[in-house]
Amino acid sequence: MREPLILVTNDDGIASPGIRCLIDIMETIGKVVVVAPDRVRSAVGHAVTIADPLRLEKIKDHNGCKEYICDGTPVDCVKIALNIVLDSKPDLIVSGINHGSNSSSNVIYSGTMSAAIEGAIEGIPSIGFSVTNPLWDIDISPSKKYVKTITKNVLKNGLPEGICLNVNIPDIKEKDIKGVRVCRQANARWTEEYEKRKDPHQKDYYWLKGTFEIFDDRHDTDEWALKNNYVSIVPVQFDLTAYNMIQTIKNWRINV
Amino acid sequence: MREPLILVTNDDGIASPGIRCLIDIMETIGKVVVVAPDRVRSAVGHAVTIADPLRLEKIKDHNGCKEYICDGTPVDCVKIALNIVLDSKPDLIVSGINHGSNSSSNVIYSGTMSAAIEGAIEGIPSIGFSVTNPLWDIDISPSKKYVKTITKNVLKNGLPEGICLNVNIPDIKEKDIKGVRVCRQANARWTEEYEKRKDPHQKDYYWLKGTFEIFDDRHDTDEWALKNNYVSIVPVQFDLTAYNMIQTIKNWRINV
Repeated sequence: MREPLILVTNDDGIASPGIRCLIDIMETIGKVVVVAPDRVRSAVGHAVTIADPLRLEKIKDHNGCKEYICDGTPVDCVKIALNIVLDSKPDLIVSGINHGSNSSSNVIYSGTMSAAIEGAIEGIPSIGFSVTNPLWDIDISPSKKYVKTITKNVLKNGLPEGICLNVNIPDIKEKDIKGVRVCRQANARWTEEYEKRKDPHQKDYYWLKGTFEIFDDRHDTDEWALKNNYVSIVPVQFDLTAYNMIQTIKNWRINV
Repeated sequence: MREPLILVTNDDGIASPGIRCLIDIMETIGKVVVVAPDRVRSAVGHAVTIADPLRLEKIKDHNGCKEYICDGTPVDCVKIALNIVLDSKPDLIVSGINHGSNSSSNVIYSGTMSAAIEGAIEGIPSIGFSVTNPLWDIDISPSKKYVKTITKNVLKNGLPEGICLNVNIPDIKEKDIKGVRVCRQANARWTEEYEKRKDPHQKDYYWLKGTFEIFDDRHDTDEWALKNNYVSIVPVQFDLTAYNMIQTIKNWRINV
């Protein structure tokens, strides 16, 4: 069997320890091409650059592993990789390892997961990986065997078009991780506040800060899994239709 | 009954004809507060500004209608409106009228729809409105009665927490619009190309261009509705879990 072609990206940018770790793992599995943002692009969601052109620079070509940086978003990186960088469709897209949890509704804000969702839209098996600690100088090594095993399972079993995986790994010692749980996205959201400050010219500006609140105490969610020392896997789709509402709204009998 | 409090935002920015039209319509329905991006922020998806502070400026306070501009994304506008600008929770959030279709998978790239989804996450009935023509100098008036009627229906019937509406209006003469259809999101995606150019310093840069391809010929989709001269309404949720994949992945029996 030929070596799988694996595209690696992230949203923390090319310099993050998380993407270095992910590249190292993928090099043990297949042929790796990296197209990552040139800087931190966290929380950019599914942003795509349409009103400006993009830059793309090859920064490494060593032992068969090529690395490129792009000044766009994670979704731009996937699009330009598929269109300009790669000669053939990759067998897999992996995004991360993100510094910070992308569990629950974070999936919708996350650049890491948006890159994976973009892969799913393109019909390529895709996985976003995150560790629950946003700090960059943590020991990320307990993630390694989970990232590797889940990746190999996806390569072996495939994923249906339109579906990718959201994998979150608790930031605890390797021996304390209890295993893997396949979950649904917990019902949770950020409760935000803005901190108002004055600049040196006496004009107001606002910093976002928030706490994450979980409104869901059942045991089948990603939040439960992570809190109980499991790696969580949520299958994610980009069809946002709320099917069970269609008939309800039809019953409104909107007549104009 | 007290007047409903309506928050208006968009992703084309405060200067767009679409938001002016939406403000005019909402002023006939309730008390209006506008918090909109200070410039075009199309295709920013669910981006949220966390690494920079935000600016907020009141630009109008006239006849009970207040308007603010913010230098963040549409989602930032919703968050700062709910936290800083408004004294009470609004009864409704409306976003748009966007210049350009947000049908099908465009929902996931769209700043307009991300603002509505943010409203849904906050448990506030929310609607994103778009006309299918991206040009700003079209006659947007055929939209008016549809926007007004759908808004009144949402205020009357409410929406469940976590669900908002994605409304697209075909850019055709008012007499040619056949009515309203409640739909699912069509299976469609952008097929992209990048056009490579050289800057005056002989360095390459890339412009995204693409065509939208529809892989779905059934009659229950938004694309079908729009093509057949109907206004489309898709109920949208932010739970991205692909429930029917959970058992499949459990069956992989991932052991680490």
